[in-house]
Amino acid sequence: MAAYPAQPAGDMKPPVPHVPAGEMLKLLDELAAYSAPGPGVTRLLYTPEWQGVQHFLQERMAGLGLEVRMDQVGNVYGTLAGSQVSDKVILTGSHIDTVVNGGRYDGAYGVAAAVTALHYLLETFGPPLRTLAVVSFCEEEGSRFPLTFWGSGNVTGLYSGKECIDCTDADGITLGAAMAACGLAGDEGLAAEAAAGLEQSGGSRSAGCGSEGSEVESMAGLEGSFWRNNSPVRSDIAAYVELHIEQGIILERTSRRIGVVQAIAGQRRYLVKVGGTANHAGTTPMGLRQDALAGSAEMLLALEHSALAEGDPLVATTGRLEVYPGTSNVIPGEVQFTLDIRHSEAGVLERFCAAVLAEFAELGRRRGLTLEVQMLLETAPAPMDQELRAALEEICLQQEKPYLSMVSGAGHDAQLFAPRCPAAMIFVPSQGGISHSPGEYTSPEELAAGLEVLTAILYRLAYE
Amino acid sequence: MAAYPAQPAGDMKPPVPHVPAGEMLKLLDELAAYSAPGPGVTRLLYTPEWQGVQHFLQERMAGLGLEVRMDQVGNVYGTLAGSQVSDKVILTGSHIDTVVNGGRYDGAYGVAAAVTALHYLLETFGPPLRTLAVVSFCEEEGSRFPLTFWGSGNVTGLYSGKECIDCTDADGITLGAAMAACGLAGDEGLAAEAAAGLEQSGGSRSAGCGSEGSEVESMAGLEGSFWRNNSPVRSDIAAYVELHIEQGIILERTSRRIGVVQAIAGQRRYLVKVGGTANHAGTTPMGLRQDALAGSAEMLLALEHSALAEGDPLVATTGRLEVYPGTSNVIPGEVQFTLDIRHSEAGVLERFCAAVLAEFAELGRRRGLTLEVQMLLETAPAPMDQELRAALEEICLQQEKPYLSMVSGAGHDAQLFAPRCPAAMIFVPSQGGISHSPGEYTSPEELAAGLEVLTAILYRLAYE
Repeated sequence: MAAYPAQPAGDMKPPVPHVPAGEMLKLLDELAAYSAPGPGVTRLLYTPEWQGVQHFLQERMAGLGLEVRMDQVGNVYGTLAGSQVSDKVILTGSHIDTVVNGGRYDGAYGVAAAVTALHYLLETFGPPLRTLAVVSFCEEEGSRFPLTFWGSGNVTGLYSGKECIDCTDADGITLGAAMAACGLAGDEGLAAEAAAGLEQSGGSRSAGCGSEGSEVESMAGLEGSFWRNNSPVRSDIAAYVELHIEQGIILERTSRRIGVVQAIAGQRRYLVKVGGTANHAGTTPMGLRQDALAGSAEMLLALEHSALAEGDPLVATTGRLEVYPGTSNVIPGEVQFTLDIRHSEAGVLERFCAAVLAEFAELGRRRGLTLEVQMLLETAPAPMDQELRAALEEICLQQEKPYLSMVSGAGHDAQLFAPRCPAAMIFVPSQGGISHSPGEYTSPEELAAGLEVLTAILYRLAYE
Repeated sequence: MAAYPAQPAGDMKPPVPHVPAGEMLKLLDELAAYSAPGPGVTRLLYTPEWQGVQHFLQERMAGLGLEVRMDQVGNVYGTLAGSQVSDKVILTGSHIDTVVNGGRYDGAYGVAAAVTALHYLLETFGPPLRTLAVVSFCEEEGSRFPLTFWGSGNVTGLYSGKECIDCTDADGITLGAAMAACGLAGDEGLAAEAAAGLEQSGGSRSAGCGSEGSEVESMAGLEGSFWRNNSPVRSDIAAYVELHIEQGIILERTSRRIGVVQAIAGQRRYLVKVGGTANHAGTTPMGLRQDALAGSAEMLLALEHSALAEGDPLVATTGRLEVYPGTSNVIPGEVQFTLDIRHSEAGVLERFCAAVLAEFAELGRRRGLTLEVQMLLETAPAPMDQELRAALEEICLQQEKPYLSMVSGAGHDAQLFAPRCPAAMIFVPSQGGISHSPGEYTSPEELAAGLEVLTAILYRLAYE
């Protein structure tokens, strides 16, 4: 890679085909054992299962010769110090938490593959030229507390630490208390003290509790403000590479082994309120109605039509819709529904959303309905690094793995790194596109293929 | 009326214009005072408010010279015995219960006007030739227990009495216990004894708890089976006339004073389940979706389109719609919605429903969605008596009141009488079409106009 001092490979050989997939598959089994009872895997942030798995990973990585560290929010690192460059880190990994009744692969695969790749590289080629590290992010899913990307978001400065004080889970336990129960810097005393400090320091914008990771703020200036010791914030990351299951059906439908992610789609989420007139379903003639649901139905069809006309990778979804008063013999007086619209290009996303909302307004006007639109979330598209993408495509060709250059419609930790350092993502197929479910599945061969590509790119970044 | 022995009017004059509307308006005020706390009027079956109002009505009617009786389910009658024909009854009235936070007019108006009309007729013309009675039905709305028409349904044999044992309100109180608390024959001992008797007698079909009054069974054979004494079942009703607010906006929009009801619309209610595939809103391309909500939206628009094309009096409504799993970033895997379709002609209703459901099936097939349809309710249209309608129109012309011959889209007690005796309904306008709300309103002049028409038809039926 042009960004790093070139070095002749000497007698080193690029790492294929002896990457030990068996070790990774066994590790995936071991990780899946850390789960709350119930179908699939449930490993929520700061629960006993979560503590168990992060402890297990630290022990395992230490045993493999990695230098192990847990930061103040619970992100776990396993590092191989570079023999030539050690002030910057080539980082790889994913998140270790799951949704409730999730699968064995979402997140855990990226961690297990990274540990296996580093172990293999160390055993085969010795210490890297440039520092190489695995990360097991504490959280990404937002399944226990109303925030996502708590792991990578703390590393990149999306979060300020204040969230410890405000956020509560479904049982009313604060994030700070949950952290303190794990021996992390979340106890209220520290949080209050730090919050006071933060107010004085000022200027660093927080995404706040309930944010969904829409914007990534500067990494600077936070270290030492909230996190007294062992701050999660890092400014030494030279590149971030994440291996993940696709969680979609595109690779399966196109019979590709590997997805090289071009960009993680940007997203806008809206709440739309359509107001009509609730009235008696029997006594109000069809011609005298302002039916908020009939109007909403017309809007949803227009949305689908526009999205199909725009073409891939644009996706537009209404996943939630509520009708008021919601009684079979009353004409709906109000409907509220969500819009989730995604595209990899900011300009297209902007134009499409504006056009759809204008059409909604026109449809509402024509029916005498009121329309209120509130943007709930805006995430900018996160383009992956061009050079890393090119390198990944070259590796796929070398390894004779059919690949697809594709957009990720789902959010990933990599999107938080993309604005600050070269970032890349490698996808493997998800059977039937199923994820966030015990039915999540990727075959051992496909998992092994992803590991081989990851190992090769890490070799290029850290050893060449 | 041809159905009754004709008699020369002699020196009697048809009853206009001195019907005392003031007495009726005062009575409406008095009735509205019997309400649970909160906005509007809340007078649910067998509550203290309900007991109070039925007791008040009995005292008032007795004071006006009517012979008073409460039957075993709490229907209150005030009767003027006929001097010539006394084995048949000309019945007029409405229901005394309300919805939660309902208005002052729905039901109560028909009772207050009937009491006033009988008082006026008795004072002005003496006892009638044919027996004339006011009824204050105990219940019609289904607001406390999951059954409607409990008053008129017991009179006409829709209910068997067994419902006392099965039905519970939101607090788990059985209908039987609620009746017993009012001193009515609802205590469990009696109910059990009577249930045993019913099983032996057999053959009488019950609408059951939770029924919405879809079918009216024979009046025969029930008397004395469940109801030990003072049975609510009546087979002596010669005609039933009900005055009611329209609960719609047709009279207001057409600037008419009086609605002469042609028929009470028949109704079909369905539950439709549309099954698709729940999937990730970000990773599933538009072309690879089976979105149950997008499919449902297309169905709802098709329904609206077909209903508008069919024209009045057909009405078709989806009042309830639920999306599963109902998360903004998940493509809906299932949608359930209700259909409420009404028309005054059984053939049209049948044809329209069949065509709509066939179209739904075709739309579902085209999108790869499953479709399940369950009929929840079927009520036959109830045509009002032709001769009574003609008499009412003649009265409107004589009294110079602009009237409209119209279909009632809402259900009323009159529909239970229509299959067994001549039945008629008179509507007055509802401001803005609003009902089942504290905002329900009809002006004193319009209320007076309805009273004048009711009094005139009762005069014709009982005095001419």
